[in-house]
Amino acid sequence: MKKAGLLGQLIQNLCCLPGVGAKTAQRMAFHLLQRDRNGAKRLAETLLQAIDKIGYCRQCRTLTENELCEICADDSRDAAIICIVESPADVWIVDQATVFNGRYFVLHGRLSPLDGIGPDELGLEQLAQYLATGTVNELILATNSTVEGEATAYFIGELARKHQVQASRIAHGVPMGGELEFIDSGTLSHAFNGRKQI
Amino acid sequence: MKKAGLLGQLIQNLCCLPGVGAKTAQRMAFHLLQRDRNGAKRLAETLLQAIDKIGYCRQCRTLTENELCEICADDSRDAAIICIVESPADVWIVDQATVFNGRYFVLHGRLSPLDGIGPDELGLEQLAQYLATGTVNELILATNSTVEGEATAYFIGELARKHQVQASRIAHGVPMGGELEFIDSGTLSHAFNGRKQI
Repeated sequence: MKKAGLLGQLIQNLCCLPGVGAKTAQRMAFHLLQRDRNGAKRLAETLLQAIDKIGYCRQCRTLTENELCEICADDSRDAAIICIVESPADVWIVDQATVFNGRYFVLHGRLSPLDGIGPDELGLEQLAQYLATGTVNELILATNSTVEGEATAYFIGELARKHQVQASRIAHGVPMGGELEFIDSGTLSHAFNGRKQI
Repeated sequence: MKKAGLLGQLIQNLCCLPGVGAKTAQRMAFHLLQRDRNGAKRLAETLLQAIDKIGYCRQCRTLTENELCEICADDSRDAAIICIVESPADVWIVDQATVFNGRYFVLHGRLSPLDGIGPDELGLEQLAQYLATGTVNELILATNSTVEGEATAYFIGELARKHQVQASRIAHGVPMGGELEFIDSGTLSHAFNGRKQI
């Protein structure tokens, strides 16, 4: 049977989901059509609505359907501490895992001159204006610990110093519950260099 | 951050896909919104169209957007041999893997009296009428080799005999490339009982 027709198209379009190949897409299509047409309808409608309405927060650049995201609009959150992350997904992850009660700033990437990603693409001009207002006391740099992520953190640290704002980097080392046996050498040597007196 | 708003709704609705939990749904939502809005739009539109238009083939009961599916509408396929399968997905699988050039009949389940699934739910009345027309010479029973699948195959075998139609069951045994060491005892004893002279 050729993968033509509407069913074939549906299977092909389901492949645009990350981590979904032809086999999974096939299983999804049959599942939706045979067992969950209501769920599929809801999904399609929400998807269309989301594409249409969800944009970026004016202040922190995360994804939101409003002008200001929920966090920026929440007055109970501390506007003096800002956590810098690479993507909107990181905002969710940090906010679910920690008791951090400040605000965020989303870079949508990291400095990568070879790919043409410089300070402008990361909205650092906007961040600098934000820092210049004087409401911010501390930046927490939570970019990923890749080479580019570290370079980005360093760059933003310099920016913070220029505005007399304190900057800190989240700790890197052996993960909680991790056994030394299974830790890579880079992480381990980082953990030794970053040791703390107890 | 509470999972409220459109983004939260999108993540929740993505969970209706089989095999997709909260974490995967989150990753999918962020991917679609940040990197592939066009793909997401196409997906949503195809999904709505598919739900609206895809129904069941009048003759073989598989999923199709037309009155007759591609296979039943294809005159080059042998109408004298019918392969009986449990689901529309099985039609695709059999058709992709084999050189079978006959037609199909989809049961949409298997006999399971305790769940209230009898011959009527499986369309066996329709199959009997089909057999009564005299165009069919052989039924190939490709139901799954579960207890219910075997019972269903036996039941349809009897139906075929009543209409003087030959019925055969697909072979069960050690899969190609399988090593005896890793085969379960049920399959192995089945393979011994079903041995063939060479």
